[in-house]
Amino acid sequence: MKKFVLTEDGLPDRWYNILPDLPVPLKPYLHPVTHEPLAREDLTSLLPDAVIDQEFTQERWVDIPDEVRDIYRMWRPTPLYRADRLERALDTPAKIYFKYEGVSPAGSHKPNTAVPQVYYNARQGVRRVTTETGAGQWGSALSFAGALFGVEVAVYMVKSSYHQKPYRRSLMETWGGQVFASPTDLTQAGRDVLAKDPDSPGSLGMAIAEAVEDALSRDDTRFALGSAMNHVVLHQTVIGIEAKRQLEMAGDYPDVVVGCVGGGSNFSGLAFPFMADRLSGDRPQTRFVAAEPTACPTLTQGRYAYDHPDTAGLGPLLPMHTVGRGFIPPPIHAGGLRFHGDAPTLCALYDQGHVEARAYDQTAVFTEAVRFARSEGFLMAPESSHALRGAVEEAVAAREAGEARTILFGFSGHGHFDLAAFDAFLAGRLEDYETPRHELEAALNELPQVAR
Amino acid sequence: MKKFVLTEDGLPDRWYNILPDLPVPLKPYLHPVTHEPLAREDLTSLLPDAVIDQEFTQERWVDIPDEVRDIYRMWRPTPLYRADRLERALDTPAKIYFKYEGVSPAGSHKPNTAVPQVYYNARQGVRRVTTETGAGQWGSALSFAGALFGVEVAVYMVKSSYHQKPYRRSLMETWGGQVFASPTDLTQAGRDVLAKDPDSPGSLGMAIAEAVEDALSRDDTRFALGSAMNHVVLHQTVIGIEAKRQLEMAGDYPDVVVGCVGGGSNFSGLAFPFMADRLSGDRPQTRFVAAEPTACPTLTQGRYAYDHPDTAGLGPLLPMHTVGRGFIPPPIHAGGLRFHGDAPTLCALYDQGHVEARAYDQTAVFTEAVRFARSEGFLMAPESSHALRGAVEEAVAAREAGEARTILFGFSGHGHFDLAAFDAFLAGRLEDYETPRHELEAALNELPQVAR
Repeated sequence: MKKFVLTEDGLPDRWYNILPDLPVPLKPYLHPVTHEPLAREDLTSLLPDAVIDQEFTQERWVDIPDEVRDIYRMWRPTPLYRADRLERALDTPAKIYFKYEGVSPAGSHKPNTAVPQVYYNARQGVRRVTTETGAGQWGSALSFAGALFGVEVAVYMVKSSYHQKPYRRSLMETWGGQVFASPTDLTQAGRDVLAKDPDSPGSLGMAIAEAVEDALSRDDTRFALGSAMNHVVLHQTVIGIEAKRQLEMAGDYPDVVVGCVGGGSNFSGLAFPFMADRLSGDRPQTRFVAAEPTACPTLTQGRYAYDHPDTAGLGPLLPMHTVGRGFIPPPIHAGGLRFHGDAPTLCALYDQGHVEARAYDQTAVFTEAVRFARSEGFLMAPESSHALRGAVEEAVAAREAGEARTILFGFSGHGHFDLAAFDAFLAGRLEDYETPRHELEAALNELPQVAR
Repeated sequence: MKKFVLTEDGLPDRWYNILPDLPVPLKPYLHPVTHEPLAREDLTSLLPDAVIDQEFTQERWVDIPDEVRDIYRMWRPTPLYRADRLERALDTPAKIYFKYEGVSPAGSHKPNTAVPQVYYNARQGVRRVTTETGAGQWGSALSFAGALFGVEVAVYMVKSSYHQKPYRRSLMETWGGQVFASPTDLTQAGRDVLAKDPDSPGSLGMAIAEAVEDALSRDDTRFALGSAMNHVVLHQTVIGIEAKRQLEMAGDYPDVVVGCVGGGSNFSGLAFPFMADRLSGDRPQTRFVAAEPTACPTLTQGRYAYDHPDTAGLGPLLPMHTVGRGFIPPPIHAGGLRFHGDAPTLCALYDQGHVEARAYDQTAVFTEAVRFARSEGFLMAPESSHALRGAVEEAVAAREAGEARTILFGFSGHGHFDLAAFDAFLAGRLEDYETPRHELEAALNELPQVAR
């Protein structure tokens, strides 16, 4: 077991923004109704000003406020490990490194953006922040951040999850978050659904609609998004910036960087500081592998098109790989990977051939998670296990080719809240799902018609 | 938030043994049947030789094998934090530091001893290790260690917990541990119980009896204990040795050290490296506070006497503060604090006035755990929350006295596997229990009659 530890001096003081380094400028976001390029002003009732600035800035480096770094210090810099026990288990000449974000109090990379988002809201005098959550990781991270800055957090949690995963709710409430089972009767959007179906189990799109309506209806309230948008990706680059320094300590540089992709902020946060070297020509051979579930194959089977981030179509149109916002993925345990689209920056780079993508079934990723627990000792969330699976494939390919290869993958969160899934896997009760081709095509056929 | 990070160079290479520094030599352990002082040989079929040596050694420092340090590096050195946000919430002039052991893969301090115990067994060619577990923390830590050294681990888990806490079982199984619901029909002890009561919910004492019988019945198998004995306390001193170095970095030394006490190894592991300075006269004013539950008040209401570590009376008689091995504590959520006795070294020091003890109700400790989550951000196990409660009392006393005070407490494990308890607390469903005085007296009246 080799661990590369940065002391607090190694905590980054700037985030890396890939926008000015993109080979082709990012297509504009479009207004959800007019389909005109989105203006700053279109977002001011939804997001705090500093966050809107970060969404559009072309500055390569953005200073991390001292107040945010003070909180980051609770768990950052996070450790980078060389997985030498896994290497031996795989009998591979490859070197496998992983960056471990599960040491954060909420257990994943999500606080990296929850903390600055809540901070910027607090600084602007916003008293309350709303959001949606499915499985609960994002709602937990935001509740944690809210507690530290004294900002109220209201989480619209998909009703089926609210009842199936009471402990995730308890975690949010322990941090003082207010959790509502969505659809609620607190919003018009919720009441409309309940009028048609009083027993509606809810959906992520519905929860977003409620959280957005709530934020728009109150002057003291804004909305926070946990992935996909530029400012979220920006905040997550602390992961890759640290990893680069730690690999320097190890005297190494990755041949391939692997991450799991839900909305894309975890993958991009790890990968983009290395992608900068590929795009600049310093390291043109570095490869990037995005690992996603076959149950929600946004990159491998989606379409590069304009789509809304929410089911209701209230949010701006984003240029992204999407399986259609009406697509409801099968209920895999990697709930954080069930988003219908991906970060526009990641999608642009994938579209231009700078990123590869692979899709995995859930029994395959749990098989890797168990092997990892028994070799490296850590219990990994099913989301992160997709990245692990990709890394193992790279290590096996290196063995078969008889060549050295340096692999870096992102271990985005621990599996302490996923033991029900491990229980099902170990008992042989875990299912794989066919990619639901027909439903996917139906959802793709309903993508908004955008002239551009 | 201030964090004091030791790099890998700060990982201790020796454990601290308090036996040669005790003001009065420790009373001998006694043979469970003859009541004669226990000989090395009495333990050889139960424990590996190196562990027996460590149980009795009078060497002040014991080298940590490289193979153990290699595993420790996964999560050690653990961070030490200054809880400045909690200090502000309490409006206290006191400085509060905490040492966080929840970063280990199993989530508590338990792997500090599970890893060397399994290592010494593996080195001796032992193929299989048995143990008991109640709530599951110790069984998890041993399963984790077994996976890393390729040693089979068999865990006798109290049957009621086995069914109530299936996820703890899944965690052990993910690491490859074999988990049996005790009482089983695999041992004579288990069969005897089942013959009388086929629906027996089991008990910790029964599970120990089964694990011991299993180990004694097979040449390739030994037993492992998670607390109380000298070798366990020895291994846990990595906590205090690191904390001392980290406080030096901070330019500080504690006026008071606070830890929670179940079997006493977590408390002693943190406290003994500081206790050495009190006993040597270098720091005679340092105070030590042991925090225990009112539901199992071994120090505050128990008797200093000889008692067996197991209910069946198979284990050696240990000189300790005990509430009687027949005492069954109320079902508090801090399952790790429900042991009827304490480490003999800790008990001797308590008996001689070097340690103070306080007992807390569970709603009081959960109240502190929630305040801590909202101020310092981390979710704490109910066991550790007893130490937190003790630290808060010290900080409030400092405020009331208008004096500075440096407080160090042990944060021995995270609460990620305890969310059901937080759920109950937040919903107002958590009960306190009167100390069951009559049951306690009945158990004390059944203590073995020992001539010495």
